[in-house]
Amino acid sequence: MSKLYIARGACSFGTHVAVRELGLPVELVKVKLREPGSLIYQVNPLGRVPALQLDDGALITESTAILQYLADQVPGTPLFAPAGSIERGQIQSWLSYIGTEIHVGSFRAINRPERYHPDPAEHTLVRERGAVQLKAGLSHIEKHLTGRQWLVGERFTIADAYLGVFIGWLARLGPEFADSAVLNGYREAYRARPSVQAALAFEQD
Amino acid sequence: MSKLYIARGACSFGTHVAVRELGLPVELVKVKLREPGSLIYQVNPLGRVPALQLDDGALITESTAILQYLADQVPGTPLFAPAGSIERGQIQSWLSYIGTEIHVGSFRAINRPERYHPDPAEHTLVRERGAVQLKAGLSHIEKHLTGRQWLVGERFTIADAYLGVFIGWLARLGPEFADSAVLNGYREAYRARPSVQAALAFEQD
Repeated sequence: MSKLYIARGACSFGTHVAVRELGLPVELVKVKLREPGSLIYQVNPLGRVPALQLDDGALITESTAILQYLADQVPGTPLFAPAGSIERGQIQSWLSYIGTEIHVGSFRAINRPERYHPDPAEHTLVRERGAVQLKAGLSHIEKHLTGRQWLVGERFTIADAYLGVFIGWLARLGPEFADSAVLNGYREAYRARPSVQAALAFEQD
Repeated sequence: MSKLYIARGACSFGTHVAVRELGLPVELVKVKLREPGSLIYQVNPLGRVPALQLDDGALITESTAILQYLADQVPGTPLFAPAGSIERGQIQSWLSYIGTEIHVGSFRAINRPERYHPDPAEHTLVRERGAVQLKAGLSHIEKHLTGRQWLVGERFTIADAYLGVFIGWLARLGPEFADSAVLNGYREAYRARPSVQAALAFEQD
């Protein structure tokens, strides 16, 4: 059986939700991050989750790759769209935007300011700049979601499995990230899904 | 005919190369970035390239989405791999790694330090941290490419069309990024392709 390595509270949550949405026989393995001796280093030398280890030992890393690989194991699933279709291109476009602009382009400056300035005394300013990027990135998403329940094709797709993770993280950032009715509604619809409820319970256990 | 909007010297170069490798009937439209009144704002409100406008008016943005969409217009192309295959997952993993760790995670701090610190006096330090991230990201790629000509499956794929852009950018960064025999060999092999030669000539014209 394939194994999906995940960590509590990490961006791997999106791939975890996708496994449950797709009903795939994938074993979920919880690991600790940034801890010497953690099992994840034996699987992925970069020490990162998510990591999908296939039966033959091959490893697929990166959320947006794992999400697409998992969905392609269930041809015709409403979570994705056929190869060559415009909808698939749009789902891929959101996957990329979320991974680059929201996760790495914004949250990394907020969560890991040491990557952008060596002096801890400057980290508050780096975090503030990250929050500015995040506001701009979210504004683009909010505009798109106005009048829509999900990102593409009026149904929950792997792009939503991924976006829901970061909309969930906003609660950690304080009240200026909690005032969007559109994003709050999105977060509630995401959390209401049985797959998300089951994934939260499994990770918190 | 679909139109691909590109800008000279931008990351859109990878999608431009893919159009030529795939032999697709896509019109290439050169635009200026960050110039008021540029045509790109009429096509993509974010003002970014690459942007692929399809015949029916639909727009696909983000390099990694456009690369996959283009390749899926040519089923069976050696530039990609079938939906559901491990190779496709590995190509997607590299697309994501290059977009997140190399482009946004590293080059953005080097090229746009103002996104990470408001004080121009600190930008040299931000750039230096970006260079540290870039070194780490390239080291992972260099290890993988040792003994290999291309990233996946011993053939040029859309992951290479994309990686070649950033390996090409290293020349702008000075001698400490020019000392890897593996990456220098990769850059030469990339530049030797007729698609890359034609794309360079078209963009410089």
